[in-house]
Amino acid sequence: MIAKHYEDMLQGKSVIRQLSEFATARGKEIGYENVFDYSLGNPSVPVPQAVTDTMIRLLQEKDPMELHGYSPSLGIPSVREKVAASLEKRFGLPYTADEIFMTSAAAAAISHALRAVTIPGDEVLTFAPCFSEYYPYVNGTGAHLKAVPADLASFQINFNAFEEMLTEKVTAVLINTPNNPSGVVYSSATLKTLADILTKKSEAFGHPIYLISDEPYREIVFKGVEAPFVSSFYDNTLMCYSYSKALSFPGERIGYLAVNPACKDAKKIVQMCGQISREIGHNCPSSLMQLTIAENLYITSDISVYETNRNILYKELTSLGLTCTEPGGTFYIFPKAPMADSKAFSEKAKEFDLILVPGDGFGCPGYFRMAYCIDTEKVERSLDAIRKLVAAC
Amino acid sequence: MIAKHYEDMLQGKSVIRQLSEFATARGKEIGYENVFDYSLGNPSVPVPQAVTDTMIRLLQEKDPMELHGYSPSLGIPSVREKVAASLEKRFGLPYTADEIFMTSAAAAAISHALRAVTIPGDEVLTFAPCFSEYYPYVNGTGAHLKAVPADLASFQINFNAFEEMLTEKVTAVLINTPNNPSGVVYSSATLKTLADILTKKSEAFGHPIYLISDEPYREIVFKGVEAPFVSSFYDNTLMCYSYSKALSFPGERIGYLAVNPACKDAKKIVQMCGQISREIGHNCPSSLMQLTIAENLYITSDISVYETNRNILYKELTSLGLTCTEPGGTFYIFPKAPMADSKAFSEKAKEFDLILVPGDGFGCPGYFRMAYCIDTEKVERSLDAIRKLVAAC
Repeated sequence: MIAKHYEDMLQGKSVIRQLSEFATARGKEIGYENVFDYSLGNPSVPVPQAVTDTMIRLLQEKDPMELHGYSPSLGIPSVREKVAASLEKRFGLPYTADEIFMTSAAAAAISHALRAVTIPGDEVLTFAPCFSEYYPYVNGTGAHLKAVPADLASFQINFNAFEEMLTEKVTAVLINTPNNPSGVVYSSATLKTLADILTKKSEAFGHPIYLISDEPYREIVFKGVEAPFVSSFYDNTLMCYSYSKALSFPGERIGYLAVNPACKDAKKIVQMCGQISREIGHNCPSSLMQLTIAENLYITSDISVYETNRNILYKELTSLGLTCTEPGGTFYIFPKAPMADSKAFSEKAKEFDLILVPGDGFGCPGYFRMAYCIDTEKVERSLDAIRKLVAAC
Repeated sequence: MIAKHYEDMLQGKSVIRQLSEFATARGKEIGYENVFDYSLGNPSVPVPQAVTDTMIRLLQEKDPMELHGYSPSLGIPSVREKVAASLEKRFGLPYTADEIFMTSAAAAAISHALRAVTIPGDEVLTFAPCFSEYYPYVNGTGAHLKAVPADLASFQINFNAFEEMLTEKVTAVLINTPNNPSGVVYSSATLKTLADILTKKSEAFGHPIYLISDEPYREIVFKGVEAPFVSSFYDNTLMCYSYSKALSFPGERIGYLAVNPACKDAKKIVQMCGQISREIGHNCPSSLMQLTIAENLYITSDISVYETNRNILYKELTSLGLTCTEPGGTFYIFPKAPMADSKAFSEKAKEFDLILVPGDGFGCPGYFRMAYCIDTEKVERSLDAIRKLVAAC
């Protein structure tokens, strides 16, 4: 018999995917340029030419046996060294290759991190609003994910609720800053308080509570916003990175797990990831992509469009009277809907060819997410539709 | 605490990896060209120039947003269509895109196939000699792998032992033809008998027994050898393919799962794979690699070297009096060691700078594997060492 667990999962069709499919279908009717599709977190600017040039040069010049040969299960040693060196240079922690594990982007990094530091039955906490895929990521390991209710005033952390939920069963906490869907960047004060609580509770429980920090938006931070390096605040941090967003490279599935050198068993955790790969069929990201990334560690795509779009939308939404925390990074904004039912609001938005994702799936009903990784010209054209939608609520 | 299960796995260091490390270290002493390293199944011929040209052209000409954008979780639709069409054209089964799931090579294909058609506690059978990684692949899902003892006379299938072990608990059977480590290709007679037994037992048990067919060596078959298409024999077949071996592309991690269109729930199984990916952090192979493969479905690397090497080694080993089944494909040969203890034999071989893998890890103690994906010139130079080794036993 086929596995009922996965068969059942087919019923829970992703709301974002449904909205995206609606946008595509509607686009066929009225032209996709007339659909204000804010559904998907797909980068809207191309990969830097330097990255393309690196790939072409590797393909033209490097011995194909070496270029396309098996990578060791932890990643190509020279790539791990360069990633470590870049992290040390930029953030000051003494990473070495031994603390770096190359992964098929952030999903695989989180998948390995969870299996390394939790066991089935453990609890993992995250903070609403959160990326809805965290549920299968965590629950697929046999651990259980619980989301701490949001701090709606600022989308930092609701520490009272967190401390209540932080029982002895919790062995890992999963955070995402800059945050999808709120766009908010956790402040130093937030990270310091979080670290203090984790340290205190690790001692009280007699076991470490690991911090798994999902940072695919780390490089997409807007002017004047402080983006503290999470791993500097708490030793037992496993950082998950992806080149999907800031390098506009999502299809190539490349990222890494970087375990804080001060983390308990840091080097062993990385070695263990090689064993976890054997059980889940991971086996390294593409070797061409590993070698390409290693030569482009200090650049991003031209991500200025996201800040431009943030400025336009934040100004418009607040001027329309919507409650909205100003995003400090990413390409998301997460306003409060002008109707109590954000699913109904998302449905209503379709009437104006606006594709908005209700906050329910992120653990924040009553809010909605706009992914503004689209052309600025389209953002500007959408303002009239937004005004009409709000007026109609 | 870190997960003891994976920490414990670190103790069981791969014998093949240890031998390969020895070969590298010994190479530093005497020159790697003087080490007859038969340890690793790494292709020894380059990827076809046409594949490199496709990648360069895609990088130069295709819109980078589209080229490197997110692939749907089941794979890029046009790629799935082309893979299906090529299978239909070559093997006559009416595959459509709906039966194809693009994967990070065979490891990921097997990983998804197992999770789709088994549940924790189930038993999965395979046949010795078998690839040792099957143990973590299967056991990592919560099912249990058991290896049916080898048919030592031919390295086809020991059906008596199989029928004894084929209890109601078994929900999947995992085969590998052409076979690593024996090089043997299952005959039509073998596959027909296997299918008959599976059909009979599926009926008797009242549940389907799925056949998971791991076929990374499908294209590496020598002259005069019949290589039947496994899926044609049994409806409930899930075929796992990888471009690692025949296209010399192992580092790029690209392959697919093709579910026989006649398989019960074929299309649903593929859809379920998208859900399985969410739990294990898979998320598609590289989009560049998917698009590249789709344009090179009918070619392989120049794999003639493997047949040349097979001829030289088979002739030499048999003329030395070793018992040896002639490989019909792959780049492996699996002779009986001239000492009862094949681990001791492998140790002894090191004295002659011969790196041979004992059969124990493949479920066949007393035998040894030679991976002859090395230059023919080196194979020829190794013959003297082989003669000396055999004489010394």
